[in-house]
Amino acid sequence: MSSFETKATIRSFGGKIFKLTHHSPTTTTPMHLNLYLPPAALTTPPTRVPVLMYLSGLTCTPDNCTEKGFFQSPASRLGLAVLYPDTSPRGLSIPGANDAYDFGEAASFYLDATVPPYADAYKMETYLTSELPSLLFSDAEFGPYLDGERVSITGHSMGGHGALTLYLRHPGMYQSCSAFAPIANPTGCPWGVKAFTGYLGEDRMEEWKGHDATELVRGLERGKELKVLVDQGTGDQFYKEGQLRTEELERAVEGAGVEGVQVRYQEGYDHSYFFMASFSEEHVEFAARALGVL
Amino acid sequence: MSSFETKATIRSFGGKIFKLTHHSPTTTTPMHLNLYLPPAALTTPPTRVPVLMYLSGLTCTPDNCTEKGFFQSPASRLGLAVLYPDTSPRGLSIPGANDAYDFGEAASFYLDATVPPYADAYKMETYLTSELPSLLFSDAEFGPYLDGERVSITGHSMGGHGALTLYLRHPGMYQSCSAFAPIANPTGCPWGVKAFTGYLGEDRMEEWKGHDATELVRGLERGKELKVLVDQGTGDQFYKEGQLRTEELERAVEGAGVEGVQVRYQEGYDHSYFFMASFSEEHVEFAARALGVL
Repeated sequence: MSSFETKATIRSFGGKIFKLTHHSPTTTTPMHLNLYLPPAALTTPPTRVPVLMYLSGLTCTPDNCTEKGFFQSPASRLGLAVLYPDTSPRGLSIPGANDAYDFGEAASFYLDATVPPYADAYKMETYLTSELPSLLFSDAEFGPYLDGERVSITGHSMGGHGALTLYLRHPGMYQSCSAFAPIANPTGCPWGVKAFTGYLGEDRMEEWKGHDATELVRGLERGKELKVLVDQGTGDQFYKEGQLRTEELERAVEGAGVEGVQVRYQEGYDHSYFFMASFSEEHVEFAARALGVL
Repeated sequence: MSSFETKATIRSFGGKIFKLTHHSPTTTTPMHLNLYLPPAALTTPPTRVPVLMYLSGLTCTPDNCTEKGFFQSPASRLGLAVLYPDTSPRGLSIPGANDAYDFGEAASFYLDATVPPYADAYKMETYLTSELPSLLFSDAEFGPYLDGERVSITGHSMGGHGALTLYLRHPGMYQSCSAFAPIANPTGCPWGVKAFTGYLGEDRMEEWKGHDATELVRGLERGKELKVLVDQGTGDQFYKEGQLRTEELERAVEGAGVEGVQVRYQEGYDHSYFFMASFSEEHVEFAARALGVL
């Protein structure tokens, strides 16, 4: 029996999108996710295919990128599953959790909160790196289609921060990481300072740094080989406002002498799904190469 | 000076999406549209590229397909502009025009209404076949990028009905026509009967037939050569409920001995943009062949 309830099954590019929910002991709530299985997986008997996990940005549900990101087309062609988790637990009665677009519900920043009132349920890092893969890759219904040993991660904006930090904090768990317009240095931008204050406590810079991609890169050994692709639009309003700080990440990569990090600036592109859709095929191909299917 | 006000310019697949508005004397209202120009057009000096016009389904604005249809990717590659008009005039104070999802605002059925209270403004056929192309293809800002002599048409659901009927009613205006899950025989389905009653008057079957793709095909001369591609998902709830009547169109094509109409049934696909996105590349390629760029 599956641990997941299937709310909808939708044909897409020869494969199938499953809209799933399950109860998470980690977050204490129901959690929503979408899973795309490509035609290469949907054989009889099932074929295990590598998995690309996509983390969404602020305000998003699993549906936004499933509808607008255009990952299914290249994932179908290359034989990758795509996993779209949610951006936070939902439906908790935490005062203030629904007051702002950039904090609380749909704005978890993909870490384990350590201070009240978020510490009990906002444990997205544990959920994404432990509970969800354990449950999904061994699931009676969906497990046989998924190769839990071959997983890459990607994400957009807050989800780009999530992808980079989970990749750097869990060496070996993901074969590659890519990010669209990530919040690359959250300890130095308003979004990040607000989130880290609320989830990790005020003035705890040493703890904050452990969830900041730029700071994590600074701590790597010289010559360390990563597999990271970052795209940043130069017309992105949040980039221009200093929320993303892509150059700080580049500076850290250079300073630490780390290899295998490619940062590209895409002329005139904004922060939207139009930007992401324009380059998602290249990100899926980047993951596919790391996962051995291209 | 341009007749269009540009509300937004968004980079997409190397080209640009323009969100435009203009005042339409035909509909007596402001009209919204999106225009995608591919990289092949955005040269200095501008290059005129063929145009694919996409008509949306019930409830939609020009934005839905621009975000979720994935026409921009193949249009960029093949060098086609894509034009996304709106689904009706908006903002008129017509009693009842905002009461239902399938009639009135966002549900024009792309014809010229002939009875009150819609006859004064719901003139979408005139708007789409006369006013908009005249204005756009000679526009000081956008005209130089567009080849008004090479235009194809496509659409989804109500917009598939619109694409088929405008193509059949205006021979020579469009080099090809394609449709996703079109309302193929509106005089025989609840959506169509409701719309035609409201826009064309009750019990006027002869007039209604002039806006029904299946009936229009029945009136064609034997051996007539068309360029039409239709995709219909077999898991489409509206297809199963009898709103689309694809088989009636096929029967008419066969009965009339008309050539060049391809109707495909796509196993398990629904009525959504996921269906359309899965096949939009093939529809853009179909148009590109008719327009001489593939």
